[in-house]
Amino acid sequence: MSPTVGVIGAGQLARMMIPPAVELGIELRVLAETEGESAGLAVTTVADYRDASSVVEFARGVDVLTFDHEHVPQDVLAAVVAAGIPVHPRPSALLYAQDKLLMRERLGGLGLPMPDWARIETAADLTAFLDAHGGRLVLKTARGGYDGKGVRVVGSAAEAADWLERGEPLLAEELVDFRRELAQLVARRPSGDAVLWPVVESVQRDGVCAEVIAPAPASAGRIADLAGDIAMTVAEQLDVAGVLAVELFETTDERLVINELAMRPHNTGHWSIDGSTTSQFEQHLRAVLDLPLGDTGCRDSWSVMVNVLGGPGSGSLTDRYAVALDAQSGVKFHSYGKESRPGRKVGHVTAGGDDLEETVYRARAASEFFRN
Amino acid sequence: MSPTVGVIGAGQLARMMIPPAVELGIELRVLAETEGESAGLAVTTVADYRDASSVVEFARGVDVLTFDHEHVPQDVLAAVVAAGIPVHPRPSALLYAQDKLLMRERLGGLGLPMPDWARIETAADLTAFLDAHGGRLVLKTARGGYDGKGVRVVGSAAEAADWLERGEPLLAEELVDFRRELAQLVARRPSGDAVLWPVVESVQRDGVCAEVIAPAPASAGRIADLAGDIAMTVAEQLDVAGVLAVELFETTDERLVINELAMRPHNTGHWSIDGSTTSQFEQHLRAVLDLPLGDTGCRDSWSVMVNVLGGPGSGSLTDRYAVALDAQSGVKFHSYGKESRPGRKVGHVTAGGDDLEETVYRARAASEFFRN
Repeated sequence: MSPTVGVIGAGQLARMMIPPAVELGIELRVLAETEGESAGLAVTTVADYRDASSVVEFARGVDVLTFDHEHVPQDVLAAVVAAGIPVHPRPSALLYAQDKLLMRERLGGLGLPMPDWARIETAADLTAFLDAHGGRLVLKTARGGYDGKGVRVVGSAAEAADWLERGEPLLAEELVDFRRELAQLVARRPSGDAVLWPVVESVQRDGVCAEVIAPAPASAGRIADLAGDIAMTVAEQLDVAGVLAVELFETTDERLVINELAMRPHNTGHWSIDGSTTSQFEQHLRAVLDLPLGDTGCRDSWSVMVNVLGGPGSGSLTDRYAVALDAQSGVKFHSYGKESRPGRKVGHVTAGGDDLEETVYRARAASEFFRN
Repeated sequence: MSPTVGVIGAGQLARMMIPPAVELGIELRVLAETEGESAGLAVTTVADYRDASSVVEFARGVDVLTFDHEHVPQDVLAAVVAAGIPVHPRPSALLYAQDKLLMRERLGGLGLPMPDWARIETAADLTAFLDAHGGRLVLKTARGGYDGKGVRVVGSAAEAADWLERGEPLLAEELVDFRRELAQLVARRPSGDAVLWPVVESVQRDGVCAEVIAPAPASAGRIADLAGDIAMTVAEQLDVAGVLAVELFETTDERLVINELAMRPHNTGHWSIDGSTTSQFEQHLRAVLDLPLGDTGCRDSWSVMVNVLGGPGSGSLTDRYAVALDAQSGVKFHSYGKESRPGRKVGHVTAGGDDLEETVYRARAASEFFRN
């Protein structure tokens, strides 16, 4: 019998699990919200992931249930666990990727480096934090944010009036004076083994990951050690199984502080499909099945991933293949099988090489062919 | 709209087209003979590939029809072409991969190097060829052979009596005194562009490809040039589109002679999934869609592929993952999703490295974990 993995969510992360599942002989079953999603080829059920009975029914017969996104409610996860179906990452770990306030409290308790932060329930809370931090702060909803959504910079309580009115607690963070953003990915088995990929540099535009350079330039030694230690500590202490991404700020005074956590394959790890011996998608499947983890070495001196975002025009990514493939025969193209909309992530490209500037150039040039 | 490729046949070659199709955003539709075949995930039709109306119906709406095997009858292919559906490789090219006698006649006409051969219709024909070639020859059925089937070494007409009785012409070839077997893969677009992978060494056991070393040791220079020229000539003169594999003997007197042709991805190219920037499966899809071809450079100094054959026991390849993945964390495993039967190809492993002996060792060790 093939090992069988159930995945909640049919976006591009579930889609990119299909190739390693095929190669490893793993049966993938995906629960989609609607027809025609990115991972459609592996969809076996279309249902609401917030409905416990639908999710339990979907999950019967899989060896483990895992995720394309972090939005599955805890009561749904509890029902799956109660039905005797393993879930990885465990609901008790996933909680910290679902709720940013709980994450800050928990990581603070572990003594891990973070921005100054506070729980905000009232305008007075917010004003007090503003006064203590130079009059500006980053305000986040505790739940539901991603890709720049649920995050804003504010200079007064009035600017956050709409969020405060909801009566849900918010997270305030100091504006970190950072030199660059890094991400450290780790994969961990339920039985405890864990492996790190090299720490990478992530370039954000408009709150969305735009480019990733692996490994992060000038990170060998202290920065890599620090990032690895932080991610290993989070993975072990929160008992995460699967891939964990720890997004970090490298401050201008050369500290690392934790920005966000994700407990699934992550945009900052897409380079690993082409650039590492074991991709984050293969590794996630191996990890949640509690199979031995693969080598995470780099296949190139530098890997550069550039996201492809939908432009003002219409048309699919593949409409532009003839030109793009011709111009960049050594760059790897990844389509998410989505209709293009302005700003929507519809694919990514990865280039590998020995010279960083030349590799960045090739990856950016390839991605440009797809902007339309 | 996604480019759409129809594939006749649902074996492991069709299966291994799924990952690059997912990454490139190509829709794959596979016609299987029965339920539960290797490429099951992409199967859209179960039908007899010898039935023209079934195949034409399957192929409606695809951008191009291609193959997992070479057994589709010419009249079926003619019906698809008549329906206005592009077929690559073209039936007029595929003919030479279907009929070994026609292949020998055609390649002989091009002046390409081959073993001595003859068309055999009677015992007298066979005896005459035996007399002229030292009393032993390789006898092949013109059609339907693969993996050692349809091939035997004979020393008398009596040993071939059963085949001669059928009344179908046979192919006799001299027993070539060879040092080793090589294979040269080329991918060619219908519009003419073509690219070569490095020539590889193929080690056969019991008539089945067992191991492949890429590139073939000590092939740089004359051997590589010769193999490349032969494959390019075959691809161009036979107007092949897609991947073409030319199996070659390197003789003890350092000549190359053509053994077999295959017009599809081939066992001797499986290393390219992990070892080349563009795998033969991705390239085949690009080629038959007449998209620009990808870089065929090697990602490692040496790539070694070892087939995994079913052993006397039962059980699937994935039953042994825990041990195999643990012992060889850098080796890439490929399952064909098949039930194990003695001698059946159920998967392969590929190792890459800088030291050939060590790389061969790792690939063989990994494959041994799966013999059961």
